[in-house]
Amino acid sequence: MPLYLEDLTPGLVFTGGPLPVTQRDVVEFGRQFDPQYFHTDPQTASSSFFGGLSASGWHTAALSMRMAVESPLNFADGVIGIEVRNLRWPRPTRPGDTLRLDLEVLETRPSRSRPGWGTAVVRWTTLNQADQIVMTAEPVIWVARRPG
Amino acid sequence: MPLYLEDLTPGLVFTGGPLPVTQRDVVEFGRQFDPQYFHTDPQTASSSFFGGLSASGWHTAALSMRMAVESPLNFADGVIGIEVRNLRWPRPTRPGDTLRLDLEVLETRPSRSRPGWGTAVVRWTTLNQADQIVMTAEPVIWVARRPG
Repeated sequence: MPLYLEDLTPGLVFTGGPLPVTQRDVVEFGRQFDPQYFHTDPQTASSSFFGGLSASGWHTAALSMRMAVESPLNFADGVIGIEVRNLRWPRPTRPGDTLRLDLEVLETRPSRSRPGWGTAVVRWTTLNQADQIVMTAEPVIWVARRPG
Repeated sequence: MPLYLEDLTPGLVFTGGPLPVTQRDVVEFGRQFDPQYFHTDPQTASSSFFGGLSASGWHTAALSMRMAVESPLNFADGVIGIEVRNLRWPRPTRPGDTLRLDLEVLETRPSRSRPGWGTAVVRWTTLNQADQIVMTAEPVIWVARRPG
């Protein structure tokens, strides 16, 4: 059931995923958007900063978005980002990881400039199968108000 | 020529791109990572918040990363993100846009915890062909110090 601004309360939590990440996924994203050898070449990546092949941080972000869109935190008019606060990658996603996304509503506010809409701040925590955090972020998104 | 921490001074500017974005690119990224109709369906997107097909904000971020990696701001050991401050999308990237990326070094600092490394804050401004800003961000990245 789609959610409106009025349905969100600070502290509300949801979970997205699981989403497995293959070596092929990592290399394909790397070749397309982040062509650096530690994202694209399993052979030489072991001598890199990361000590092995790792997913681009932007790949982890894109996978987190997919888990958010498919999660039960399902807004009536879509998940529309305005900005993201505090985007951090404390460790990389590795090939073979299975990710999940914890979502927590931090605050909501009706919009003054855009009638019928408001904004919500949601805390994303992306974790791997060992419960290690691979990404945190606080997207600020547009959320439609309940009509009527 | 690869750059080290010692080569960076606040105020130094670089440009990345240009990078054209097709409707096919927008829809493929949307299907894979941000499956919402305003990113994937040119027919129905006109009735959406965006008034037409638009690229996922994470697609704009991934394209910006590619322009950064291929830009002359070319670090000796790669572009390795720790966090991103102030990520904002003031307007969407549209199919047919051609993007470019302006990069400005904001600050640098040797690392206390990791010998041989330091951190740099870089301001990214991603613009379309009409010089409209589609994304701003301030990545904080690991940069190797000059050996010796």
